[in-house]
Amino acid sequence: MSLAVKLHITNQLNLNLGQTSINKKTKFYTPKIRTKPIYHSNPLISTTSYNKPITTMHVPSYSSSIKSSLIDPDGGALVDLVVPERERAKKKLEAEALPPVRLTKIDVEWVHVISEGWASPLRGFMRESEYLQSLHFNCLRVESGSLVNMSLPIVLAIDDDTKTRIGSSPNVGLVGPNGDLVGILRSIEIYKHNKEERIARTWGTTTPGLPYVEEVITPAGNWLVGGDLEVLNPIKYSDGLDHYRLSPQQLRKEFDRRQADAVFAFQLRNPVHNGHALLMNDTRKRLLEMGYKNPILLLHPLGGFTKADDVPLDVRMEQHSKVLEDGILDPETTIVAIFPSPMHYAGPTEVQWHAKARINAGANFYIVGRDPAGMGHPTEKRDLYDPDHGKKVLSMAPGLEKLNILPFRVAAYDTVEKKMAFFEPSRAKDFLFISGTKMRTYARTGENPPDGFMCPAGWNVLVKYYESLQAEEALQQQAVLTS
Amino acid sequence: MSLAVKLHITNQLNLNLGQTSINKKTKFYTPKIRTKPIYHSNPLISTTSYNKPITTMHVPSYSSSIKSSLIDPDGGALVDLVVPERERAKKKLEAEALPPVRLTKIDVEWVHVISEGWASPLRGFMRESEYLQSLHFNCLRVESGSLVNMSLPIVLAIDDDTKTRIGSSPNVGLVGPNGDLVGILRSIEIYKHNKEERIARTWGTTTPGLPYVEEVITPAGNWLVGGDLEVLNPIKYSDGLDHYRLSPQQLRKEFDRRQADAVFAFQLRNPVHNGHALLMNDTRKRLLEMGYKNPILLLHPLGGFTKADDVPLDVRMEQHSKVLEDGILDPETTIVAIFPSPMHYAGPTEVQWHAKARINAGANFYIVGRDPAGMGHPTEKRDLYDPDHGKKVLSMAPGLEKLNILPFRVAAYDTVEKKMAFFEPSRAKDFLFISGTKMRTYARTGENPPDGFMCPAGWNVLVKYYESLQAEEALQQQAVLTS
Repeated sequence: MSLAVKLHITNQLNLNLGQTSINKKTKFYTPKIRTKPIYHSNPLISTTSYNKPITTMHVPSYSSSIKSSLIDPDGGALVDLVVPERERAKKKLEAEALPPVRLTKIDVEWVHVISEGWASPLRGFMRESEYLQSLHFNCLRVESGSLVNMSLPIVLAIDDDTKTRIGSSPNVGLVGPNGDLVGILRSIEIYKHNKEERIARTWGTTTPGLPYVEEVITPAGNWLVGGDLEVLNPIKYSDGLDHYRLSPQQLRKEFDRRQADAVFAFQLRNPVHNGHALLMNDTRKRLLEMGYKNPILLLHPLGGFTKADDVPLDVRMEQHSKVLEDGILDPETTIVAIFPSPMHYAGPTEVQWHAKARINAGANFYIVGRDPAGMGHPTEKRDLYDPDHGKKVLSMAPGLEKLNILPFRVAAYDTVEKKMAFFEPSRAKDFLFISGTKMRTYARTGENPPDGFMCPAGWNVLVKYYESLQAEEALQQQAVLTS
Repeated sequence: MSLAVKLHITNQLNLNLGQTSINKKTKFYTPKIRTKPIYHSNPLISTTSYNKPITTMHVPSYSSSIKSSLIDPDGGALVDLVVPERERAKKKLEAEALPPVRLTKIDVEWVHVISEGWASPLRGFMRESEYLQSLHFNCLRVESGSLVNMSLPIVLAIDDDTKTRIGSSPNVGLVGPNGDLVGILRSIEIYKHNKEERIARTWGTTTPGLPYVEEVITPAGNWLVGGDLEVLNPIKYSDGLDHYRLSPQQLRKEFDRRQADAVFAFQLRNPVHNGHALLMNDTRKRLLEMGYKNPILLLHPLGGFTKADDVPLDVRMEQHSKVLEDGILDPETTIVAIFPSPMHYAGPTEVQWHAKARINAGANFYIVGRDPAGMGHPTEKRDLYDPDHGKKVLSMAPGLEKLNILPFRVAAYDTVEKKMAFFEPSRAKDFLFISGTKMRTYARTGENPPDGFMCPAGWNVLVKYYESLQAEEALQQQAVLTS
């Protein structure tokens, strides 16, 4: 499939393209502001100890001076593990002499994540103490004694042969899938990789068919190696999308340059439909009403591993660019960038990681919806997770207290108003829920979704993708038949 | 089997019985005091943020005045949910009119645990927000914003019929296995019981054959009901052991009465052998060396559900009494009491519960050994958990910072010295490891364990138990053959 991202991005991240006014069709809905936690009242937990409801948040007085930061990175400082250029030659020589550990494509995605500080204060693949804290508590204790959130184990698996080859060497060289030296892992610790325990505690199920488990964990070795990471060169993918891959440091600088006084992050791994746009625009409106003068949206699609039937990253990036060109989202107040993490599809456990990484990127508001990081159960006809657990767990997670969690109401297609709108239970029969699966089926079969579901140019990107996919499949079938 | 606990206990908890001097054979071993956390050095975690290593602990100056407490209960105050006597008749009438929820024997054990404040600040069976925090974080946030440890979900399951019967009633009556009214659960919340998720996140495995799962969870209903508990009468078992069932409040009073300036708790569900005694006596010695004048040992066998092949509670209590009579442990400085919780066999997750409950009982030191709350894998030839994970997880657990964790070195039978001693790797071949399974096999087959493994009177209790068991089995077999 050809890559046709038409969105032009300058070095200054000027995303001011096409129409800049917000689509007039997008009617703002004013949801009741919640003054209580989002779940059942709980005598053990006061509202004050929680992630603060948005009505009681501190609203800063606006200042035209550039802010260094709206929210501190976890651990106080952003981790940056890329070796300075002047030291690279020396470190490369050192790495070449070390016992090699071969990385998979997804291991490299994690190297990318760690090296740029998305997982701050983590400075490398987890040693056992971090791994155990992550599995049992979803958080790590830092030097000050406080807790930072860390819900996914970020680990590097090795097999028996590699372990033997490492022997008692305190450091190893990390080698990419193509044989290129990627970095060094220092002061390593090797410990057992109990796959079943890792899966059970991360996913809350051991059901077969979990995409990350099948792709990453099942084929992995029986040992994990943790240590301090040094990366020889910034991780690049040369797929035409690297300019979208802004590091947490670059994002923080850009928020400052734009004089943002609030940054609200939206994590996604699907095309943006008008329901998404509705809630992003509604969030911006709410923030303005609260007194913020310049809230900036971080539209932050996930760029690492996704399951086979998800829409590929390049297609999604093109679709997102159309949404901005069409003015469904306002390019003046939106930054589109790629979040380099692989996807676990671990629901309530993973959504914490998604939120935590955005703290490090400088976002002080995080939008969370129904069933975040969830998927259908691989073998049963139901969601893998209770769709409400994600936002509940997120709102209670240790280490995320400083982040403002913005739960949103479900948007669906209003068949009367012929547009995406917040669902109203009183006239439930007027609403049509269009799931990701249903959306993909529409696009695959060439059927148009209801008018107002997605901007036409964005929809066209998806239709073309599925056409190319079908053409490819037909070619492959022909090849099989004629071979 | 006849119950023959010969240990006489007065109302004043005077455990001064038999020989009071410490067995002269028990040679004290002086392990090196650790100045670092017990696991691999971790740059993210400072030693100060950890459960303090014992060399840096605050050592109080001794005072002869009675202390109100050595350690605050979780949440600041002990929970006591037993209805005052003058209100019982009225509450009983109310309970009789409420939709009934039938409790199993193990549900009643949890009612006991909650009502006496072992799980403080929990005031009833968990509602969903507490359940999710427990499953995901092993801790709960309290009103002050701080975290208390809570690693096991303490929940009450109901089936579809019971849920229907409850309807929209805000309160339910709790009915014991024999039909007696036990209490009231108020302001209830009913939510889904996803058994697989509960099992996976609690045990880190979904392997078949987990005793608590098979006994409790698999047969349970598909809903959980949480709410505020009121108990009509203190829970009693009338098994001749109720005098051993001291509440956290009673234990705290007794520690004060004895003018304890340190209380170290030892959790167990097995007979006490001389290896256990060695480490308990060694711990006392260490505490004295640190400046404490009157450390008291809380020997605290678990009294709730245990798996079928564990030694029953009454036999264990008799065995423990022999150990004190024989002076293997010093009755002057030891309190024996029953911890009413059921056993999960959930290793690193459960050991946190065992420690947390002892905070509430007033213990400020907790002894932890190899593979706490662990067991053999039900289907594979290995331990279910990494034997070192328990103490590692315990030392890092949120909410347990105020508790001093005392990891101990492995004791084994020294075949040269002919006694239980701390294992010395330099002469590993001299040591014999006698597991619980092996000990039970000795007792069952009538074979004597090596001299010095356990005091003869204590051993005799076990031998008699297994003889009675075999006699019973023979009788049953005969009954089958003749029927």
